[in-house]
Amino acid sequence: MTMKISYKVWLDHDGKAFGDGPYELLTRVEKTKSLRQAANQMGMAYSKAWRLIRTLEERLGFVLLERKTGGQSGGGSRVTPKAKELMKHYGRFRKDVKDAMEGIYRRHFSSLAQKVRK
Amino acid sequence: MTMKISYKVWLDHDGKAFGDGPYELLTRVEKTKSLRQAANQMGMAYSKAWRLIRTLEERLGFVLLERKTGGQSGGGSRVTPKAKELMKHYGRFRKDVKDAMEGIYRRHFSSLAQKVRK
Repeated sequence: MTMKISYKVWLDHDGKAFGDGPYELLTRVEKTKSLRQAANQMGMAYSKAWRLIRTLEERLGFVLLERKTGGQSGGGSRVTPKAKELMKHYGRFRKDVKDAMEGIYRRHFSSLAQKVRK
Repeated sequence: MTMKISYKVWLDHDGKAFGDGPYELLTRVEKTKSLRQAANQMGMAYSKAWRLIRTLEERLGFVLLERKTGGQSGGGSRVTPKAKELMKHYGRFRKDVKDAMEGIYRRHFSSLAQKVRK
């Protein structure tokens, strides 16, 4: 095992407004067209997933998911165009963060990493 | 309030090995020559500060603090040369992380930040 950099990053607007978890959840909703299935895949209760989405929507100021038909037990979920735009930006942002963090770590700590490995 | 980026970053080697908290603690030890005073200033119990230092030392593989004289209740603490080297690197690393994160956020989310402000 070697020394490494670890980090968590998220968008904040009066609390966590978007991050890796929501990004994964919405990506899975896009594929499955179902928040229930997306939540299941991530081992998250459906009710918790809905509450999360509602909280994020409040903090972001726009709607992320629209139910296609039926009530809470029926129909599917559609990722809104604004949510898709956010996901596109977030995906690129996240990639740049990863690259930058690894570069900065190497720049400052390559010698430390070597010392620890010895 | 506007949308902003938030993050936590730390060095990891089989667990958290160094981060903002330890950096602040050691900086205060450097100034006060006392882990007890440094811990007090941060509202941290002395025993907790010692356990933290010991855990970090284990994960880093080198000693951070040396007691100058006396036992646990007496004397002062000295930051080791290796710890000072780590702090120097970490301080620069942390500054670069801050600058990079803010730049990346602006690059990807300046439009989102404006939307939320409306």
